[in-house]
Amino acid sequence: MSTSTFVLPVSLALQLLTSASPSPQNTATAPSQEPAPKSPATSSVKATPPAVTKLSAAQQATAAKLMGPALAEGHAYARLAELTDGIGPRLSGSESAEAAVQWALRSFQADGVKAWKEPVKVPRWVRGEEHGEILASERTRGLPLALLALGGSAPTPPEGITAEVVEVGSLEELAALGDKVKGRIVFFNHTMSEAADYGRFAGLRGRGPAAAAKQGAVAALVRSLATASLRTPHTGSTRFDEGGPRLPAAAVSVEDALTLHRMLQGGTVKVRLVLGCSDLPDADSSNVVAEVRGREKPDEVVLLGAHLDSWDVGTGAHDDGAGVVMVMEAARLIAKLPQAPRRTVRVVLFMNEENGLRGGRAYAERHAKELSKHVAAIEMDAGGGRPLGVSLHAGPGGEALLWPWLAPLEGLGAAKFLVGHATGADLSPMEPAHVPFVGVRVDSSRYFDVHHSMADTLDKVDPQDLSRSTAAVTWMAYALAESPGTLARPTAPESDDPPKKK
Amino acid sequence: MSTSTFVLPVSLALQLLTSASPSPQNTATAPSQEPAPKSPATSSVKATPPAVTKLSAAQQATAAKLMGPALAEGHAYARLAELTDGIGPRLSGSESAEAAVQWALRSFQADGVKAWKEPVKVPRWVRGEEHGEILASERTRGLPLALLALGGSAPTPPEGITAEVVEVGSLEELAALGDKVKGRIVFFNHTMSEAADYGRFAGLRGRGPAAAAKQGAVAALVRSLATASLRTPHTGSTRFDEGGPRLPAAAVSVEDALTLHRMLQGGTVKVRLVLGCSDLPDADSSNVVAEVRGREKPDEVVLLGAHLDSWDVGTGAHDDGAGVVMVMEAARLIAKLPQAPRRTVRVVLFMNEENGLRGGRAYAERHAKELSKHVAAIEMDAGGGRPLGVSLHAGPGGEALLWPWLAPLEGLGAAKFLVGHATGADLSPMEPAHVPFVGVRVDSSRYFDVHHSMADTLDKVDPQDLSRSTAAVTWMAYALAESPGTLARPTAPESDDPPKKK
Repeated sequence: MSTSTFVLPVSLALQLLTSASPSPQNTATAPSQEPAPKSPATSSVKATPPAVTKLSAAQQATAAKLMGPALAEGHAYARLAELTDGIGPRLSGSESAEAAVQWALRSFQADGVKAWKEPVKVPRWVRGEEHGEILASERTRGLPLALLALGGSAPTPPEGITAEVVEVGSLEELAALGDKVKGRIVFFNHTMSEAADYGRFAGLRGRGPAAAAKQGAVAALVRSLATASLRTPHTGSTRFDEGGPRLPAAAVSVEDALTLHRMLQGGTVKVRLVLGCSDLPDADSSNVVAEVRGREKPDEVVLLGAHLDSWDVGTGAHDDGAGVVMVMEAARLIAKLPQAPRRTVRVVLFMNEENGLRGGRAYAERHAKELSKHVAAIEMDAGGGRPLGVSLHAGPGGEALLWPWLAPLEGLGAAKFLVGHATGADLSPMEPAHVPFVGVRVDSSRYFDVHHSMADTLDKVDPQDLSRSTAAVTWMAYALAESPGTLARPTAPESDDPPKKK
Repeated sequence: MSTSTFVLPVSLALQLLTSASPSPQNTATAPSQEPAPKSPATSSVKATPPAVTKLSAAQQATAAKLMGPALAEGHAYARLAELTDGIGPRLSGSESAEAAVQWALRSFQADGVKAWKEPVKVPRWVRGEEHGEILASERTRGLPLALLALGGSAPTPPEGITAEVVEVGSLEELAALGDKVKGRIVFFNHTMSEAADYGRFAGLRGRGPAAAAKQGAVAALVRSLATASLRTPHTGSTRFDEGGPRLPAAAVSVEDALTLHRMLQGGTVKVRLVLGCSDLPDADSSNVVAEVRGREKPDEVVLLGAHLDSWDVGTGAHDDGAGVVMVMEAARLIAKLPQAPRRTVRVVLFMNEENGLRGGRAYAERHAKELSKHVAAIEMDAGGGRPLGVSLHAGPGGEALLWPWLAPLEGLGAAKFLVGHATGADLSPMEPAHVPFVGVRVDSSRYFDVHHSMADTLDKVDPQDLSRSTAAVTWMAYALAESPGTLARPTAPESDDPPKKK
């Protein structure tokens, strides 16, 4: 494994910690006077909560003990290099996914954190040969398409599928076409240009191909959900109904989507598509669970989640290697404290977030009886960007309860409550049990440049940003485990804010 | 072919033309008061030439006749769509390259510009299967490499080549290793980060593999010459001595170069490389030559060049589709003038700039006797960016001669002489004949984001930038053909400023 580590200059680490010490004024006025950072539209800062008491000197000292090493030692980044360079892509069911499980267990052991595996049956979808082309017509001599099969795609016959392309911009537009798409390749186009657009258009990838199949289409092409492209296709999961019709489905690069769109302005476009993907039998895999037992209320659990699996094309540095190493580092640092926090901090490295969510479901089922004692859950799965602030999905009074505990995040620019509910794909099976969710939100404005693509590699993660978000999540996990009070539980699953779909 | 056209709002076109009209003050003072645009380091503006007389009203009217349609009609961009979407990649010797020749002849005919082919024998190098991987070691389970064979590369055996990697940062460092690279794969790493770095590091790709072969290396990997990457390899030509040793050589993406470098910090790295490229016999191809005969001195030629071939991976939109459509549009617009300029304007669409320069050499040989009457040559081969200014490679007095003719470029922000000699790969065979070169320089700051990669596609060219550079080159071609005086010829090939290597 790589031995290189990132070391933050001590002066900067100290500066961050110094400014992290809360002053009475800080706790009584606006959380930060700095200009609002440029961030996704979902990161608007909420109004200041009411004045509250401040942290004790001992609590401040603990913040320094946790956040100092997170900021200065570069341990999370070194781990990320091990996971990405050492293990590489790790799609559920692959040998590499199993290697990642073993690596996580070894790493927790090295950190002095008790860890174990919990079984998860995972789907095993395997990419094969894949290519496609716009066929020659009076408008072109023919052009290859840069594409990636979507996870869950059916294969084409070995000789491929050749059909006319019909473009739609929404599921509604597809529905309106009825059986006019029969025998056609449906091309889902959209206008994603910034990270905040992901939620708007992800349904085209997730549900579009199944809808097209029901209307008799023979294949689907989806414009990649991306905020940057150098002819870079971005894969992702597509879902077909159990027993419903399936079809071959692929993401094309933004450039190829633009080309298809231009070509379709001039007349009929035929595409030939060859996808050699296959579904193997479900495989045995695992969530990796680790915990630091609480000193007073060990049965009350603060859950820190991230997902260990990645897509098969990049090395999953942002998605979700960054989240994995952040929550592992949180456990390592909390375990090193002279005194454990009041409650148990439990890290769950979920398997199969990307193409099945089986790990999230398996955890919620296996631990169903404990979920009423899960007092908070955080999932880190939005890349390795710098921390922006905190969001909640809890009952009333959550912000007032947590507000004093945000003070140590001041020096990171993250001592803010952000608009929008905390979510997490792997956490979503815990929603019916009313587990409160806490979001430690990071800057994801460039996340979709590389998300689900070959380009999601270590070099895209900024070591300083990673260390800052690691410090933030470490502290918030401790705060939730140590705070005398706990968050009120949300009354019902939020129907207007569904869990993050990937 | 695509029928879509880009239309500049008439108001903007008029505004550009209005401000393009020279005022007495403009011709006597600094060419532009606007802040210097952000541009490559090579685009420093020269000191103001001495005061000169201004253009006549008739000349100003001609400028408006030429530049107005270039700015407002979008004809060049529509042509670029035909070439890139319609014909696609067009490496020398391919059927598509021949299709591009036929397209150019048809297009000139449609424009009322006399055009013909001139034969060129071209090399025919063909890409095959290609892949590579870092082999498993104690530091990694193995990682695939995103790579492209370099043009001119030898193939590997079908089972590939497996060898240890040795990294070098320069040709000097390679030479110092002597026979220590024997049996190894030499990895040429560098730190290109901006367009101006291209010249510094292009020699690693062009000459590095041949040097490694002479020292007994079995293959070469070169970090892509790129200013942006999403795991995007950039190909290009590598040159081996006639009869000298060859080896398989590929460009790896920037990310993969970073990974190799990280892995090499930890110990031995082995790579397996499979390149299925092949050299076919030389093929018959053509330069396309077109001209508008001069009204007074038809034997005096102003040459406008660009190259019709492209690499085989993208559609060559910036390299050099943009140059091709600019010079074609210049000929179309000059041909439509009620009166031809004094001298002949000759457009040459060179074949095989990318991997042989056979077109440039064939032109210089075939027209050797006319070269003394070539009064100026411009090559457009730096992408479709906006115009920045004019550079020269001529004898003394050139700037004073041309200065009044720059006035119509004022509204484009390009009425400036730039530091650095005008060059052009296809023009370089004319240097011994002392042909004066004129550069209509464009903003190439983002050119190397896509250059020689799959991502060099139509969407990367901004229609307004293209129209502005088209207007600039159209006017400069006319100016050189109409000016009563001609540029003094340069005294000798510039040894300190070699022609652009690709």
